[in-house]
Amino acid sequence: MGQGGFAERLRASAHARESWLCVGLDPDPTRLPASVERSGRGITRFCQAIIDATADVACAYKANFAFFELMGADGWRALEETRAHVPPDIPIIADAKRGDIGNTARAYADAILTKLGFDAVTVNPYLGWDSLEPFFGYEGKGVFVLCKTSNPGADDLQALVVDGEPLYMRVARQAISLRVPADIGLVVGATQPAALRAVRAIDRETILLVPGVGAQGADAAEAISYAANDSGDNALITVSREILFASRDDNYVEAGSAVARRRARETWHASSRTS
Amino acid sequence: MGQGGFAERLRASAHARESWLCVGLDPDPTRLPASVERSGRGITRFCQAIIDATADVACAYKANFAFFELMGADGWRALEETRAHVPPDIPIIADAKRGDIGNTARAYADAILTKLGFDAVTVNPYLGWDSLEPFFGYEGKGVFVLCKTSNPGADDLQALVVDGEPLYMRVARQAISLRVPADIGLVVGATQPAALRAVRAIDRETILLVPGVGAQGADAAEAISYAANDSGDNALITVSREILFASRDDNYVEAGSAVARRRARETWHASSRTS
Repeated sequence: MGQGGFAERLRASAHARESWLCVGLDPDPTRLPASVERSGRGITRFCQAIIDATADVACAYKANFAFFELMGADGWRALEETRAHVPPDIPIIADAKRGDIGNTARAYADAILTKLGFDAVTVNPYLGWDSLEPFFGYEGKGVFVLCKTSNPGADDLQALVVDGEPLYMRVARQAISLRVPADIGLVVGATQPAALRAVRAIDRETILLVPGVGAQGADAAEAISYAANDSGDNALITVSREILFASRDDNYVEAGSAVARRRARETWHASSRTS
Repeated sequence: MGQGGFAERLRASAHARESWLCVGLDPDPTRLPASVERSGRGITRFCQAIIDATADVACAYKANFAFFELMGADGWRALEETRAHVPPDIPIIADAKRGDIGNTARAYADAILTKLGFDAVTVNPYLGWDSLEPFFGYEGKGVFVLCKTSNPGADDLQALVVDGEPLYMRVARQAISLRVPADIGLVVGATQPAALRAVRAIDRETILLVPGVGAQGADAAEAISYAANDSGDNALITVSREILFASRDDNYVEAGSAVARRRARETWHASSRTS
């Protein structure tokens, strides 16, 4: 994790804002405020408004590619324009969960990290470590490997016991031990306190990306207490729906901003920083 | 696998053409013939020319999303136009390897199977079976679950032993036992003969999508002999680079067509059909 690397820039952003809140940009057409046009342009404006209203408390953003792809080619353009709107000192993560082999993985990495210019990307480890190498080669970027997800069925594969430990712990251990140009992070759901604690115990430096707070039922303060290291750092608490869809009326920006502010404070003050 | 379902239509296409060849559309800009413009329009024309030249021997097509996404919004449009160019009696698979949870998975499924109108999609099982449910809900469509991939690092996770059997066999068994509206298939690399044989032994009806023939070194005739069932059916042998990049010169369509023809024959006559 070199100077100027992803993790370093993320920590700087968090400390400047006293927040480990990552605002998730999930422009789900079934949940958007009534006044937002269901189109590429509509979701671009919506995401840009949310960014404007939260840039002082969001240490990072995370764009959920699925909802952009739902708008086809216009959605891809919305992704470009949303990415371009994020202030330069705030990293933005491509939540694309890609995973493929050889030249294909190289193309995904290039599309997301170079062409779209995202600072980091989420990837899936099922295809093996060689499949992720093209992502790992980007100095200055971050790569978040899916480890233990926040859904009820996460255990189907991730909790299977391999050589005496759950598969997700093996994934965590191997990912953390990689020595590659990119900064490696791990995705561990906020709904999985035991997993958060176990993964954090392996290493204090690795950035944990923690979804599942808010709409998925987990508590931000609790999540940060399990996921942060002994300095209260390196746990990126993602909140999406609770901020984006705080109101379906025209006050959605203010309503979302208020939720973001509350959650941001929790990610800072609930951490061991204050103890 | 009801009448009119994906598997049924695929078998009809295969029998009509006497071929289990799936032509992979991977418009990799680093490999395209010199005369092909590196743009959305360029790859659309390239893919359309390949489709025109192979539609009599390709029982299916498979579009590799990475190389389209590399062209940004124009690439997404190329995906739409490539899909639209495939004759209606030939299924086309979205090789997108998606996998996410809840509403996000639903958005990916909707984007690919409804908006883009693909007949089937490849998905990643690491997040658990509930994560794939939105894909499984599409009656008439196919969902290919990644099982054992063709890359050298496939074993990192897929071959780990869980309760006495490799993880990929557990994935195969659980996927095959699903009773869902969509037709379930499995991705098993041609470079993995033992895995092909073991997975086929579980069930004769499941369609196996078999990449890795040609450029990745495996042999089509051998792959079909392991992957097909006792009628010589249900193994979709994917060939991409060997066909697409058969020539870097202006004769690339003829050169690719010749390779496709040869491979198609192998997928039919090397199967147990003739024995």
